[in-house]
Amino acid sequence: MDNPIITLTTDFGYKDPFVGIMKGIILDINPAAKIVDITHGISPQNISEAALTLEMSFKTFSHNTIHLVVVDPGVGSARRPILAITEDYFFIGPDNGVFSRVFPLSERLLVLHITASHYFLKKDGSTFQGRDIFAPIAAWLSKGIEITNFGDPITDFKKLSIPSPQLTGTNVIDGEVIYIDRFGNTMTNIHTEKISEMTGSNSENKIKVLIKGKEIPFKTYYSQVKDTGLYALINSFGYLEFFIRNGNAARTHGIKVGEKVGVMLP
Amino acid sequence: MDNPIITLTTDFGYKDPFVGIMKGIILDINPAAKIVDITHGISPQNISEAALTLEMSFKTFSHNTIHLVVVDPGVGSARRPILAITEDYFFIGPDNGVFSRVFPLSERLLVLHITASHYFLKKDGSTFQGRDIFAPIAAWLSKGIEITNFGDPITDFKKLSIPSPQLTGTNVIDGEVIYIDRFGNTMTNIHTEKISEMTGSNSENKIKVLIKGKEIPFKTYYSQVKDTGLYALINSFGYLEFFIRNGNAARTHGIKVGEKVGVMLP
Amino acid sequence: MDNPIITLTTDFGYKDPFVGIMKGIILDINPAAKIVDITHGISPQNISEAALTLEMSFKTFSHNTIHLVVVDPGVGSARRPILAITEDYFFIGPDNGVFSRVFPLSERLLVLHITASHYFLKKDGSTFQGRDIFAPIAAWLSKGIEITNFGDPITDFKKLSIPSPQLTGTNVIDGEVIYIDRFGNTMTNIHTEKISEMTGSNSENKIKVLIKGKEIPFKTYYSQVKDTGLYALINSFGYLEFFIRNGNAARTHGIKVGEKVGVMLP
Repeated sequence: MDNPIITLTTDFGYKDPFVGIMKGIILDINPAAKIVDITHGISPQNISEAALTLEMSFKTFSHNTIHLVVVDPGVGSARRPILAITEDYFFIGPDNGVFSRVFPLSERLLVLHITASHYFLKKDGSTFQGRDIFAPIAAWLSKGIEITNFGDPITDFKKLSIPSPQLTGTNVIDGEVIYIDRFGNTMTNIHTEKISEMTGSNSENKIKVLIKGKEIPFKTYYSQVKDTGLYALINSFGYLEFFIRNGNAARTHGIKVGEKVGVMLP
Repeated sequence: MDNPIITLTTDFGYKDPFVGIMKGIILDINPAAKIVDITHGISPQNISEAALTLEMSFKTFSHNTIHLVVVDPGVGSARRPILAITEDYFFIGPDNGVFSRVFPLSERLLVLHITASHYFLKKDGSTFQGRDIFAPIAAWLSKGIEITNFGDPITDFKKLSIPSPQLTGTNVIDGEVIYIDRFGNTMTNIHTEKISEMTGSNSENKIKVLIKGKEIPFKTYYSQVKDTGLYALINSFGYLEFFIRNGNAARTHGIKVGEKVGVMLP
Repeated sequence: MDNPIITLTTDFGYKDPFVGIMKGIILDINPAAKIVDITHGISPQNISEAALTLEMSFKTFSHNTIHLVVVDPGVGSARRPILAITEDYFFIGPDNGVFSRVFPLSERLLVLHITASHYFLKKDGSTFQGRDIFAPIAAWLSKGIEITNFGDPITDFKKLSIPSPQLTGTNVIDGEVIYIDRFGNTMTNIHTEKISEMTGSNSENKIKVLIKGKEIPFKTYYSQVKDTGLYALINSFGYLEFFIRNGNAARTHGIKVGEKVGVMLP
């Protein structure tokens, strides 16, 4: 591969040397690899959050990018390390459902159980496979090793149950908050396409948005709002989001992941 | 450009994938771009802090570096995206005053309103222009596209009001705290050159420094101090700063940005 | 050097522009340098933590990597800047003991007092030598300048007192907690080799592990545990560690660095 990009998404945080160690391994095997951090701020062991983070970001990267995810509460157990190839990307990580949001977005998908242990680092521990398995596999893959050399195809890879919005009666979409960003903006699982397909396009202004039992006004961008109230908009990923202008909606209104939200259609 | 460097300064933090997404966009357009994070830890929507951060860092980068800043509370509104060129650098970001501290430090300055939307990403949202406008513009610029292709010159770009120290009477400089760093060191807007021009050079030992109504002893470096008291020095950017050795001056003494300070000249 | 890697380990955090500034300096001197962050999350002024972080990570990097460490409470004082070369790596940083854990792991070691000030940046301050001394020295070294040009050999470089486990009586190893990671896992200074040399290999299952006066069960990997109790294992660096599965052992049990632990041999 020319200019191979390897992205990293982990829950390793920014305090410990774990991410730096993985980068050392990768660059030792393939000095030409270009490593890009998506984030290391995934909440510890939060597979759902990692899955969503990857959904938000994977498509912005170049063809043939290798997306490496290490959010791995089952590290060392019998859960399998997997490698996937789609029409555009490679994915490497634990078989714990972390790719559940991106695999369905691909037209072609081949998933392998990584078993070629001669590519692994020789280390005793079974607690840091980001270093011992995933980083070296990503590096060798970026050097052009054929993916079939890393293991055998599987079809029973793990799928997370993704909360999808539900139509209740004829005119209500029930959804929930699925992500809260640094700014306290609370993203829901209700996509603008879902609203459009039920109401016709460009109808956001006609719908009513509900959270915590209150009807929330609908806007297009943050600074349209002049006060400190709670508002809704369609965010940059196409999802319904609640926000406070220059404030923290999640903290101010005690909104958490899982909070129920509703959209009333006209 | 050879070895084009693009620096990133944002308030996106380290939890969300927003920075990684911008890097994906940039590298997709220009795989040769070298991206350097200045920081993503700017306080949310804090334009002044971003302006100061850029002032502290921009000159350490190579000639032709592209400095991209995304601290953008007005995203999606009519505030303009701008691109500036000086004798040494390029600057890209929102027209909200974030470049108010660096533009005056340049001898030559041309500011353009970015209007060439065929370089933008095709996305619906108006809430993440770091991805949709600024990252692609920086990437295309780094590939050598002439800057005049991106928009038309403007002169009415926004300027922040920067708090400057004032001479009160004949022998007092009134200033204020403008930045608090990770260590709790509190940097003021009183520059050593300001003190020198009023007192003659090398006279820091003769001045008195005041904060919270107390006179604070003056030192040259942190570990000169052997106790846990509050002290002052001229910091590595030339500004008067208050510190506690191996401690957090801001937290211990409740010092915030905006706190008034004084220097009494001999 | 081809593909010179410079790693950075600092206590500068992720809020301020200090790390970005150092990268700007390095790339201005050597655009071919590849900079890798090990971490910037070392606790402020915590030399011991930096020393341990470096021990955990340095060997995963390629031959000839330059490891640059800036955790430097004595910055500006008479403490010396040093440069070291071993059979595999270069090390640059303050002479404050930060390399005390890695120097003894090398077979060959030459330490120089950096005195070649013509390589330094010309700056007044004596509070940010990461920018003014260490970054430029690392960059010039990465360009192939002979190390003997940077200063003269010394042998009296500072050594930290490293807490080593003690054998008490004939069957107890007394150790202590030396590191707590992002997940709250508490790493001790008792290495599996220490246990093995006293008991014969593969005997972890026969030993008893003690902390806070309680005997703690021994496991191999985290998800072996099905409850929320405190457990021990040998971690990925070979050290005895206490953990709670999907929980934070340090916070839950109030374990801090320095907490005494014991291993009872059979």
